[in-house]
Amino acid sequence: MPYDDDNIFAKILREEIPSIRVFEDDETLVFMDIMPRTDGHCLVIPKTPCRNVLDASEAQLAAVMRTVQKLARAVMVAFDATGVTVQQFNEADGGQEVFHLHFHILPRHADVSLRPPGRMGDMEAIRVHADRIRAVLAG
Amino acid sequence: MPYDDDNIFAKILREEIPSIRVFEDDETLVFMDIMPRTDGHCLVIPKTPCRNVLDASEAQLAAVMRTVQKLARAVMVAFDATGVTVQQFNEADGGQEVFHLHFHILPRHADVSLRPPGRMGDMEAIRVHADRIRAVLAG
Repeated sequence: MPYDDDNIFAKILREEIPSIRVFEDDETLVFMDIMPRTDGHCLVIPKTPCRNVLDASEAQLAAVMRTVQKLARAVMVAFDATGVTVQQFNEADGGQEVFHLHFHILPRHADVSLRPPGRMGDMEAIRVHADRIRAVLAG
Repeated sequence: MPYDDDNIFAKILREEIPSIRVFEDDETLVFMDIMPRTDGHCLVIPKTPCRNVLDASEAQLAAVMRTVQKLARAVMVAFDATGVTVQQFNEADGGQEVFHLHFHILPRHADVSLRPPGRMGDMEAIRVHADRIRAVLAG
């Protein structure tokens, strides 16, 4: 399937629509999921186009994984988390809803289940969670 | 947390316990999950020790992701899948049960949910699924 340059994350990268950003480097961007399944749920994406793992380049995957690790470590501290769940969906039947490669970073705690998918979060709470991640990344 | 050299996947790597292998290269091994949540559910691990994404090296992550992509593409063909779900769990509260870094590769189809976790699969069926993946990888 070809990459659709009008997907939501492409628009976020071009700043055509707003997002709550927590980190970026030359190759990757991290922003908050606005339908968070846990406090601190964020998304890691490459800045260059690819649809998902199936069509990504080796360089895109390597760059994204460096940032996945950075954010996994950061959310452990930012939320006093005791685990991190990483999810990555490929094509609609694999669970993918936006067709730009992304990894979900979900800070976890004992006996706290993921919230159901597809529910809008409280934007003020999400902003506070983003601040906590940014503070950890800033050292 | 330190790496435990007696975890199940370390024993599989040392061939102290059996596994149904489908692929290996210098840095990674792929074998079938014996509690498959979909037909073709397999696991990608590095051959060198690390607990999970939190303590992995950049080289381990890059090697594992190359193999994750290879297997994601292979299972799409082997099972006529229309999607692939990738899951990766860190620490017990993040969903991790074996403390050697691993990525779950789950071939997906429309309207077919994941099976519940923790149920042993039919070993003969798993062997047939492994054969299908191997056949695709062999070209």
